[in-house]
Amino acid sequence: MNRGKRTEISTLGEFGLIEHLTSDLTPVNPETVTGAGDDAAILHFDNEEEVLISTDIFMEGVHFDLTYFPLKHLGYKVTMANLSDIYAMNGTPKQITVSLALSKKFCIEDIEQLYAGIKLACSEHNTDIVGGDTTSSLTGLAISITAIGTSPRGRAVKRSGAKETDLICVSGDLGAAYMGLQLLEREKVATADKEDIQPDFAGKEYLLERQLKPEARKDIIEQLRKEGITPTAMMDISDGLSSELMHICKQSKVGCRIYEERIPIDYQTAIMAEELNLNVVTCALNGGEDYELLFTVPIADHEKITAMKGVHIIGHIVGDSMGCAMITRDGAEMELRAQGWNALKE
Amino acid sequence: MNRGKRTEISTLGEFGLIEHLTSDLTPVNPETVTGAGDDAAILHFDNEEEVLISTDIFMEGVHFDLTYFPLKHLGYKVTMANLSDIYAMNGTPKQITVSLALSKKFCIEDIEQLYAGIKLACSEHNTDIVGGDTTSSLTGLAISITAIGTSPRGRAVKRSGAKETDLICVSGDLGAAYMGLQLLEREKVATADKEDIQPDFAGKEYLLERQLKPEARKDIIEQLRKEGITPTAMMDISDGLSSELMHICKQSKVGCRIYEERIPIDYQTAIMAEELNLNVVTCALNGGEDYELLFTVPIADHEKITAMKGVHIIGHIVGDSMGCAMITRDGAEMELRAQGWNALKE
Repeated sequence: MNRGKRTEISTLGEFGLIEHLTSDLTPVNPETVTGAGDDAAILHFDNEEEVLISTDIFMEGVHFDLTYFPLKHLGYKVTMANLSDIYAMNGTPKQITVSLALSKKFCIEDIEQLYAGIKLACSEHNTDIVGGDTTSSLTGLAISITAIGTSPRGRAVKRSGAKETDLICVSGDLGAAYMGLQLLEREKVATADKEDIQPDFAGKEYLLERQLKPEARKDIIEQLRKEGITPTAMMDISDGLSSELMHICKQSKVGCRIYEERIPIDYQTAIMAEELNLNVVTCALNGGEDYELLFTVPIADHEKITAMKGVHIIGHIVGDSMGCAMITRDGAEMELRAQGWNALKE
Repeated sequence: MNRGKRTEISTLGEFGLIEHLTSDLTPVNPETVTGAGDDAAILHFDNEEEVLISTDIFMEGVHFDLTYFPLKHLGYKVTMANLSDIYAMNGTPKQITVSLALSKKFCIEDIEQLYAGIKLACSEHNTDIVGGDTTSSLTGLAISITAIGTSPRGRAVKRSGAKETDLICVSGDLGAAYMGLQLLEREKVATADKEDIQPDFAGKEYLLERQLKPEARKDIIEQLRKEGITPTAMMDISDGLSSELMHICKQSKVGCRIYEERIPIDYQTAIMAEELNLNVVTCALNGGEDYELLFTVPIADHEKITAMKGVHIIGHIVGDSMGCAMITRDGAEMELRAQGWNALKE
């Protein structure tokens, strides 16, 4: 929250605020005919393209805590989360719409920060902001983003196409965003009611970055295209590897085997888990918000995938009747469970 | 809120709830390739069509009061509000996505009611529900809907095309939804703490219907097409006639003259205004949520428009320098002001 100049939103009103935030937007995609400022945005897509639509809603107190989450980072992150869904379909994001509901505690400077993050994420991914809604809220902040993307006709990758013997791959490493969250939560408690205490995050910068500034894996999609690899199934990891893998298996009507030793984990994640007395593999399996890509490819692509930077083969697809399991380091079979971050379970 | 059977949402969890709500959805539009159940929906649009995207967010306590607003009606209304934006572009709605954030006070039966209203509105307008997000909220209910529609290439109607001498038209009548809201608010106060008192709404059914079950004006768009009329500018009236007319004038760089005596008002609206000691014309100018269409047509279409059922010519477009004004019944000129329902002004 802003601690400097504070201009009340009521001085601009709803339409004034929208105009203030969107007047400098210049569409970069030819698919954007007209952007914000009318009842609807007008887009045009080529007949050879399919259109991908994804939407998410983020609520203060549930998805983010503004006591330690800077608004600019928040704008960046919620946008990335949505762009990530478009990449997870093997698509290219083109536009987003942004709906905000704001309580009176927010001033114009706050919303400028939030928008600065949204705009930065969009600019890094050549995505146009083409509209939205801004209104008031009785309590806290709600953000809903809809992302629109394209994929050549028939080339979008669903969750349902994984086949027996396919290799299971993940990009990057897992569990770090969750560890970043634990770190921020710990410091929040430790510094509560203490002014001017700066938490010391030395040696843990990566964890913070993964939590506060996740990146949608456009680079992986580009690499896959370059190598001529089309995944048979794909998802992004927002709720945790275990949960997402079980979605793919359920929708593809298959089972899976993954190997504990192959799950990619950064050393900062491991050290932090040690500090907190947590099992690091459990964190990698069930911690959410990594926004890495989880996908399956035919076994014939083994060589190409092995040569790809930043992609790890963690297991393979098996028959439906064999269920979903992880082979632990000592050779035992452990059934996977979707313990991921499930917002509506208690 | 449900007072019968109550099943906690936690018994299903996020994914279980989404599956429960969307498993019976069967797309009706050829533009819907695959609907809910993946990272993104896959759509396909013909090269000759433009795609329209509109999004809105509705917050409990700001946009609706569940003490008198039944959840099924709420689902219907928020969907209609979004479909109305697509019609207001001269488009045809094809899909929506639905994002919900729910506090613990809601049970599965509540959300079934909400979804029943959303599905009913979609089915009346041949619109597919193609995805969304369902999550938790610390306080109350937030609903964000994104509507996707199409319009033949180059035929979408913006707010910016009104020209001098164009006729200003509105569909239906105005102010009734606002009066319905006043009525419900009055009864809420009158029946507070009194059990088993049934409010008497006899003679005011129309006002309630306009507030609780508004209809997007698909029929008007169809009539205009049939008559070969393409409006030069169009909006739907969600914030009030005055406010919307000023948007059209500002974006078209023109002024306007409307006539008090021509503003369409239902007799129930007039009687209720009398009862509440309100100026009925002020209510018609500034009351929101009517979801009628406001549009301008070339003067050459005068005869055709006059013959159209349910459309009223209320004035005409003038030069920018003449400003926006209403000619009152006694011939005075009253400057229009956007006092509409502005969610972020105090």
